[in-house]
Amino acid sequence: MKSRSIKIALIQSRCFDTADENRQYIKEQLSKAAANKADLVLLQELHNTPYFCIEEKPSNFDLAETIPGESTDFFSQLAKKLSLVIVTSLFEKRARGLYHNTAVVLDKDGSIAGKYRKMHIPDDPGFYEKYYFTPGDLGFTPIQTSIGKLGVLICWDQWFPEAARLMALAGADILLYPTAIGWDPKDSAQEQQRQLQAWQNIQRSHAIANGLTVASCNRTGLESVDNISTRFWGNSFICGPQGEILAQADSENDAIIESSIDFEQTESIRRIWPYLRDRRIDAYQGINKRLLDE
Amino acid sequence: MKSRSIKIALIQSRCFDTADENRQYIKEQLSKAAANKADLVLLQELHNTPYFCIEEKPSNFDLAETIPGESTDFFSQLAKKLSLVIVTSLFEKRARGLYHNTAVVLDKDGSIAGKYRKMHIPDDPGFYEKYYFTPGDLGFTPIQTSIGKLGVLICWDQWFPEAARLMALAGADILLYPTAIGWDPKDSAQEQQRQLQAWQNIQRSHAIANGLTVASCNRTGLESVDNISTRFWGNSFICGPQGEILAQADSENDAIIESSIDFEQTESIRRIWPYLRDRRIDAYQGINKRLLDE
Repeated sequence: MKSRSIKIALIQSRCFDTADENRQYIKEQLSKAAANKADLVLLQELHNTPYFCIEEKPSNFDLAETIPGESTDFFSQLAKKLSLVIVTSLFEKRARGLYHNTAVVLDKDGSIAGKYRKMHIPDDPGFYEKYYFTPGDLGFTPIQTSIGKLGVLICWDQWFPEAARLMALAGADILLYPTAIGWDPKDSAQEQQRQLQAWQNIQRSHAIANGLTVASCNRTGLESVDNISTRFWGNSFICGPQGEILAQADSENDAIIESSIDFEQTESIRRIWPYLRDRRIDAYQGINKRLLDE
Repeated sequence: MKSRSIKIALIQSRCFDTADENRQYIKEQLSKAAANKADLVLLQELHNTPYFCIEEKPSNFDLAETIPGESTDFFSQLAKKLSLVIVTSLFEKRARGLYHNTAVVLDKDGSIAGKYRKMHIPDDPGFYEKYYFTPGDLGFTPIQTSIGKLGVLICWDQWFPEAARLMALAGADILLYPTAIGWDPKDSAQEQQRQLQAWQNIQRSHAIANGLTVASCNRTGLESVDNISTRFWGNSFICGPQGEILAQADSENDAIIESSIDFEQTESIRRIWPYLRDRRIDAYQGINKRLLDE
């Protein structure tokens, strides 16, 4: 099998207050990743701002931007200059009163290779995303780039095996999750550990079920508004197609983590674990139902 | 919320050569589990015999039995005597030339509560199950018992998130996997660890994705025919609805592992992680396709 090896890097950090500061910080990290021969850099979810969904506030819609727009122009120039594929994450203003949580992929030539609009939208205390984001309408469609087909999903999507499976069936070479998830400081240390382990476990399971590399990039830092706080738990990681951890950051520190991966490993793993051969597609219709209660 | 707590036990062991010896051994362990106040006992896959699918041999079809039949009669009497729900696993002879890999659930009154025919059938060197078993035709249907609805799945099913999801959507209170999986002794220690971790990881992910307790009962021991050997890796385990390990056996020793679980925990976990609320059933049609390559 012909090797299709690429080097991927994830930039994990706490967020500054303004988009300018965040973009400048990311620019410096992108240069470091490029100097270290990365082909693809995955950024964390909504990396331009503090996690504004911590509250429902009408003026926060001012943070949204168009595609193309200021941020895609900024990262497009960097992608071209540094010869990187960059997976960015934006608060997309699609029309007046219509917003999405959107990942945009810039190819090495600076072009927009494609975008993915977050399909599963969470909503719980401190994560009021249903207020801001209309659920995506582009489906689970991998984005073709010069280095492969990227199965880009976003945060809450990571809890849904269906999303990973559909990206794999559509030919994704890798699954990439920009994410912003953290602890409620009021929870016990034990509960916090259970949540972190579950978060990593479910994403590793998508690697296993589909024979793909998975990378997930999460922010760090404590962010608070009024009496609601989230301590973003970092732990950005890359795992191989058996779910084995290849690189992982800790929960506190800014970090660039990286790994070389070979897309052809998917073929060899799918030969020893040929799940795609054996799926019972004659018996899965119920997946399209809300509940099988009739 | 009203507690619906039950105690479950898993019997992990190496297999004796004959069905009589295995049934006698299991009988003793069932008595111990009952003395320890178990409500439900999960047995390992095809517990009556060595793992005969290690080779393709026509006379092995003589090992199959009908339902009801000798084994269901045997375990039915024990279920009633010990007031246990027992999940057994059998090589089912359904008709001349038609065989399944089937789990049968006996209720506490000794009645057959229901059966599940393994839906996903593996086939790779030393695991020639496609030769013996016709894929199940009963779908992913939980089995109603006096203590709850049991989502019984079998071994290779554990690698398919669709199977777990469908059982959950159909109202399963718990997922139960009789299994027979092990290492190829020729693989490196590192590869063996990756496989074991992946096996546990994928099953824990079903607990997480669906907010359910998962229990998986696997055999131990080295079994060989000609130049093919499998070292069954044990590691039977029970995990809670966040994927947290509640009990686990090792890879070598016979063991009864047990845990008390509360089905109502599913409600509280699904409140903090409401995945069922947010599934994009309008966008999952592709799951019913072999591949999205058109």
